[in-house]
Amino acid sequence: MIRHRGEGFTWDGVDIHPYKETGTHFKSIHRQTLFPGGYDLPVELRYFEMAADGHSTLEQHQHAHLVMIIRGSGRVLVGDAVTEIKEHDLVHVPPGTWHQFRATNGEPLGFLCVVNQERDRPQRPEERHLEVLNADPIVAEFIRY
Amino acid sequence: MIRHRGEGFTWDGVDIHPYKETGTHFKSIHRQTLFPGGYDLPVELRYFEMAADGHSTLEQHQHAHLVMIIRGSGRVLVGDAVTEIKEHDLVHVPPGTWHQFRATNGEPLGFLCVVNQERDRPQRPEERHLEVLNADPIVAEFIRY
Repeated sequence: MIRHRGEGFTWDGVDIHPYKETGTHFKSIHRQTLFPGGYDLPVELRYFEMAADGHSTLEQHQHAHLVMIIRGSGRVLVGDAVTEIKEHDLVHVPPGTWHQFRATNGEPLGFLCVVNQERDRPQRPEERHLEVLNADPIVAEFIRY
Repeated sequence: MIRHRGEGFTWDGVDIHPYKETGTHFKSIHRQTLFPGGYDLPVELRYFEMAADGHSTLEQHQHAHLVMIIRGSGRVLVGDAVTEIKEHDLVHVPPGTWHQFRATNGEPLGFLCVVNQERDRPQRPEERHLEVLNADPIVAEFIRY
């Protein structure tokens, strides 16, 4: 039983971590691991939150994400589509799919994310990937890297 | 991308099912499967909701549940402890642990539940289990079966 604290989105005994150790390809975002995997569940449950105007890294990888928004709203790039997201929307990020979350609506954006415990490292876009992404003006306007 | 409808807790393209096909050991509860498993995620994500005064089945099984409350409040039995639960609390139901959720606070209780795609069938209490459970007056007052 892990109790939500009721002030902000924090939980008893759960540490707030930097999103990633290093980098300038993300902004105003932190990470909490709510469940590290266990029992017969080989998955982690994490909570990510970005402040208004924050964003996650533009990246892809071979593992999937299953995301449920539980705080605020914003927009997400998945593949070549930029979509509005709000509380309780569910977002699939399939393997090998470029994705980036942004808190674009002047409020925080927080979400649960289920991933396999064993997973590959994210890949950031190279110049050739950015050329493809930037070919679509809506994607070009949206992405931060 | 599965969009939350914003009225009640329903999602586009997600059917609302009876909690279980038969039985009188649960009350005013339904089930939605938000993610049936896929990619490298061998888990299902379900949403359960009970109306005020509803409850899930008192049961145990060898698979685990990872539960996050996302609507309302109530109480839960896990093992031999009855605990108040509210929005964004996280509940571990380890293998082989008696558990029952109840919407005891005059409002609905809704939660996300992560389970392995492959799992054993739940077991309901036999007389000998009920004797043990009912030996604790707090548990005895709480359980419905």
